[in-house]
Amino acid sequence: MASQSDCKGGCVPKVVDHQQRRRLITEALWRIAARHGLEAASLTEVATEAGVSKGLVQHYFRSREEMLLFAIDHANQRLRSRIQQRLASDARPKPMALLHALALALLPTDEESHTGALVSVAFFIRGLSNATLANTFQQGFAELLALITEQIRAAQQSGEIDRTLDPEQEAHILLALTGGLTSSILSGHTAPSAASTTVEYHLARLTPAAR
Amino acid sequence: MASQSDCKGGCVPKVVDHQQRRRLITEALWRIAARHGLEAASLTEVATEAGVSKGLVQHYFRSREEMLLFAIDHANQRLRSRIQQRLASDARPKPMALLHALALALLPTDEESHTGALVSVAFFIRGLSNATLANTFQQGFAELLALITEQIRAAQQSGEIDRTLDPEQEAHILLALTGGLTSSILSGHTAPSAASTTVEYHLARLTPAAR
Repeated sequence: MASQSDCKGGCVPKVVDHQQRRRLITEALWRIAARHGLEAASLTEVATEAGVSKGLVQHYFRSREEMLLFAIDHANQRLRSRIQQRLASDARPKPMALLHALALALLPTDEESHTGALVSVAFFIRGLSNATLANTFQQGFAELLALITEQIRAAQQSGEIDRTLDPEQEAHILLALTGGLTSSILSGHTAPSAASTTVEYHLARLTPAAR
Repeated sequence: MASQSDCKGGCVPKVVDHQQRRRLITEALWRIAARHGLEAASLTEVATEAGVSKGLVQHYFRSREEMLLFAIDHANQRLRSRIQQRLASDARPKPMALLHALALALLPTDEESHTGALVSVAFFIRGLSNATLANTFQQGFAELLALITEQIRAAQQSGEIDRTLDPEQEAHILLALTGGLTSSILSGHTAPSAASTTVEYHLARLTPAAR
């Protein structure tokens, strides 16, 4: 990556460099949060973990709060990309296929999503006593709920989900179910594959054929 | 309560006193855990919160670990008593009534159960890095799962739940659902009454009439 001093004639746009550095720092924050929770993640600790100076961390994040908010955003981006990956083979997925992909992407089934889930737990805990984080977390929850509700409505219109079911209640249930199974996977009660089977079992009952 | 020096002729059995003191200390631990998480709950802090000496806490609990294990046990007792309260009006409840009572008792719907849920979260977090606590927690989870599965089977036999449903999957779903809704109540996304309605909506679909 070109540094500022190399930029004589033309230069790689600085924004790419910024994004990479922010990602580097955020990933360090993630690793700390997954190991010890967010309480341990001071700017100094994050700088050490990322192998950069504290000054550099402060250049990108004016406060610890700002760093945490960026990390939530990063978590949401990861989730979106996990959903996209599950749908990659399907150019125009039907609403029910999208709903499956979405529900399964919410479960920690590999190392990355396991770390992501531990980070979410850390945010959840911190949100219990920090209003700003709680609001951001709450907004993410509301968006996810709206997205799931929308997919359920679309699947009802395409005839893939029974039209007599209440889309809002079903969305609440699916989100709470994946949340509960996530806790269960993290604490070692449930294997990721068993949790996926349970989600599939639940989604199957929503189809008109099952009723 | 009679102290040892009062016991000349006859005396209130010491065991009652012990139980009360243990409960007093455990409730202090609960209050700290609900406010700041279990990390803050040292023997010294618990003694201060309970208004007793550190020596007295050590008399009842040889280690911090032992105190935490007692607190989990206390949480389980509270849960059982909450279920009993919900069934109090019903001398011989049917399996489905018991299942309703059990599922609703798992949600934080009043101050005591809210505190209990925060304590459970604190144990869950600590269990992620403490094998002994994780085992105790895991055992409680397995027992609860077995109890729910048993009630679902009984309700299938009494004709209150559709016999084609898989009792083990349904138990996993019900437990994960209440767990997910509990997190959602704690973080302020969902009102306790709305969560109860969602649980009722879900249970209603398991009846033969709904299918």
